[in-house]
Amino acid sequence: MVQIKINLDENEMPKYWYNIVPDLPDPPEPPLNPFTGEPAKAEDLETIFPKSLIMQEMSNERYAKIPKEVLEIYKMWRPNPLRRAVRLEKILKTPAQIYYKYEGESPTGSHKVNSSVPQCYYNMKDGTELLTTETGAGQWGCALAYACNLFEMDCKVFMVRSSFEQKPQRKTLINLWGGNVVSSPSMETEYGREIIKQTPDIPGTLGIAITEAIEYAMKQPNAKYSLGSVLNHVLLHQTIIGLELKKQMEIIDTTPDYLIGCCGGGSNFAGLIFPFVKDIIDKKSDIQAIGVESSTCPSMTKGEYRYDSGDAAGKTPDLKMYTLGCQFVPPAQHAGGLRYHGMAPLLSQVLNSGFCKAESYREYDVFKAGHLFSKAEGIIPAPESCHAIAAVLKRAEECKKTGEKKTIVFNLSGHGFIDLYAYEKYLTGKMVT
Amino acid sequence: MVQIKINLDENEMPKYWYNIVPDLPDPPEPPLNPFTGEPAKAEDLETIFPKSLIMQEMSNERYAKIPKEVLEIYKMWRPNPLRRAVRLEKILKTPAQIYYKYEGESPTGSHKVNSSVPQCYYNMKDGTELLTTETGAGQWGCALAYACNLFEMDCKVFMVRSSFEQKPQRKTLINLWGGNVVSSPSMETEYGREIIKQTPDIPGTLGIAITEAIEYAMKQPNAKYSLGSVLNHVLLHQTIIGLELKKQMEIIDTTPDYLIGCCGGGSNFAGLIFPFVKDIIDKKSDIQAIGVESSTCPSMTKGEYRYDSGDAAGKTPDLKMYTLGCQFVPPAQHAGGLRYHGMAPLLSQVLNSGFCKAESYREYDVFKAGHLFSKAEGIIPAPESCHAIAAVLKRAEECKKTGEKKTIVFNLSGHGFIDLYAYEKYLTGKMVT
Repeated sequence: MVQIKINLDENEMPKYWYNIVPDLPDPPEPPLNPFTGEPAKAEDLETIFPKSLIMQEMSNERYAKIPKEVLEIYKMWRPNPLRRAVRLEKILKTPAQIYYKYEGESPTGSHKVNSSVPQCYYNMKDGTELLTTETGAGQWGCALAYACNLFEMDCKVFMVRSSFEQKPQRKTLINLWGGNVVSSPSMETEYGREIIKQTPDIPGTLGIAITEAIEYAMKQPNAKYSLGSVLNHVLLHQTIIGLELKKQMEIIDTTPDYLIGCCGGGSNFAGLIFPFVKDIIDKKSDIQAIGVESSTCPSMTKGEYRYDSGDAAGKTPDLKMYTLGCQFVPPAQHAGGLRYHGMAPLLSQVLNSGFCKAESYREYDVFKAGHLFSKAEGIIPAPESCHAIAAVLKRAEECKKTGEKKTIVFNLSGHGFIDLYAYEKYLTGKMVT
Repeated sequence: MVQIKINLDENEMPKYWYNIVPDLPDPPEPPLNPFTGEPAKAEDLETIFPKSLIMQEMSNERYAKIPKEVLEIYKMWRPNPLRRAVRLEKILKTPAQIYYKYEGESPTGSHKVNSSVPQCYYNMKDGTELLTTETGAGQWGCALAYACNLFEMDCKVFMVRSSFEQKPQRKTLINLWGGNVVSSPSMETEYGREIIKQTPDIPGTLGIAITEAIEYAMKQPNAKYSLGSVLNHVLLHQTIIGLELKKQMEIIDTTPDYLIGCCGGGSNFAGLIFPFVKDIIDKKSDIQAIGVESSTCPSMTKGEYRYDSGDAAGKTPDLKMYTLGCQFVPPAQHAGGLRYHGMAPLLSQVLNSGFCKAESYREYDVFKAGHLFSKAEGIIPAPESCHAIAAVLKRAEECKKTGEKKTIVFNLSGHGFIDLYAYEKYLTGKMVT
């Protein structure tokens, strides 16, 4: 019988995160202080982040030790198996072998807890009592509320309005774990009130929610802000996915031909591919890494590679990244996690250097892909993850034509049990084809 | 570090289901033909079940080989780890060790696929083209739709009205996997039309939905009916849970003091405990097995042990079981899976013989237990599973008082991502305390 799951034991879980910075041919271009235009100093960041995370953000060390307390918590959902999509291969009649890491079995249903837990841990160590954040689809807001609950911190979430209205269950989840969530733009910040005054019907953006979360944190005692993607330390934490995958590929003595993931801010895709990029850079490997974004928010495929603000109001440092402009307002589509105007600077650099590729897909097509996947494998993918699946299906179809037995590996970043309203629209013909 | 997950490899997955019948001190009392009052013959059942499942239903063999095709599919979510609830133990400050099997990682989010897959497999082999069924919470309906999809059969689900209205997402899930679902009582059967005429506001019952599903199947070509609990062959399939658990307890060289599961029709609890009952019967073990039901539908704690019909209209054979009467209409509470008027005959016999116990809990108390669990372990339990957790907490508290380091093992039968509306009611004080 074909082996469907390649397991790792708890003691085989990676004990270090991987930092790609020292392995890149060029040093990353630094974040800039938006007021001076000079490279941001650690002190510039201390108003919103704890020192230990700023050190990780600026680190040049190749490996960062995962604290014992974080490992203990990771063990609740990690290491997760590498799964082979045998039934999908059969349905597609492809000679390709399709594998995936499934992050939907974490407590909150996505990869986001891989970073929310260490972020809360370091904040707790540094004395933070309240963490604020933004959330698009709600995955990150849930993950931060869950982690704050573990370390007994307060949690305040600004959730992009379009998602807040589509998914009341996210609010319940955040509340269950003791967090507080408001629709963004909100009346709880100056910036939110101003936006509502100017454009009362705006569906919200991640950029606006970030601005609100930062403003809120800066006005509260012992409060810090937390970001669920984009920044170096978030991508660092997510490398646990790719590091596990590397071990699992060794067990089955295989090298991936394709590594595929969806991209909003870039953390799940970077977490998947970064441990493999050094081999791509050194030309030791022919792996094609493909980041997949929404056609409604195509920062990598249609954005510019330049310095831009991480939020709507210029409160964050300026970051060198692929961007659609920090004022870009994407339509209220269903993959709320893929609506960020920019792309993680480290991932943008990897893309700009040609070490990975980017593609964009349309909403209806990704739901069609997700539907086929759910019929084959049972798992209901989150709308974000459906983007990765669409790109996987494209490669599997190509292999069918060429007869090549390629190995396709993708990251199924989360489940879609909270997104069934969107599947219902897809099924009943209410989604634009 | 404490080991949190005790894994089994794919090749360690049990290859046989366990049939408790030959190990019971007395032979089970037979199902009776409701028209003649005589023990039902295999032929009596052939109008609604395929022959291969009837053979399993009536079997006296201790082990039943799991077909290779079913094993292949089981591997998508099995074997699942035995998990230790370390954080819960800490929060409770109990010396008890709490372990659980988590069935919520299956494609449909509950243990139900353990039986829907083999049921569909045997039906497919016997030429069935359409399967009909009832569903309470929607877990079984989803599981059957998923399995019918795998074996390319049509699926028609009669869903108890109160759940149908509470959980529109269940409809979407069933539709995604190609099934068709209607609210029960429905206008699609004579019995449904009659009930609607008599009591238009009835919240529905599993007994009515079963009657409708059977009537519907009997009027279609190549159609059979499928039941998600209660019957011997369903309990047989679910023993995969307890068989895995037994191997995992051997790995950590421990014997459970308590085995706990929630009970609607009894299949997840029986699946957990049956592989251990022989040792209880032979007094080789002091395990206390505790089945937990809803106080609104207390068949085991307040019902009578007698022959009764399995459905509302007397279309099924009469079964010897704990029952509240086949006309019993429980209130529309949130654990839709625990609203059946009776209890599985084999489990009823085990209970009546004193080899397990039964307890009932109130709705608010079980949500409180589930909430505490979700804060500790991250997983959001289905309302049904919260019942088991309430009984676990009770034992853990007792151990705290006595200082005993007992081992408590329970079955977390499913996740609650589709039940967040109920948690919202709990959180906002809209549930009766």
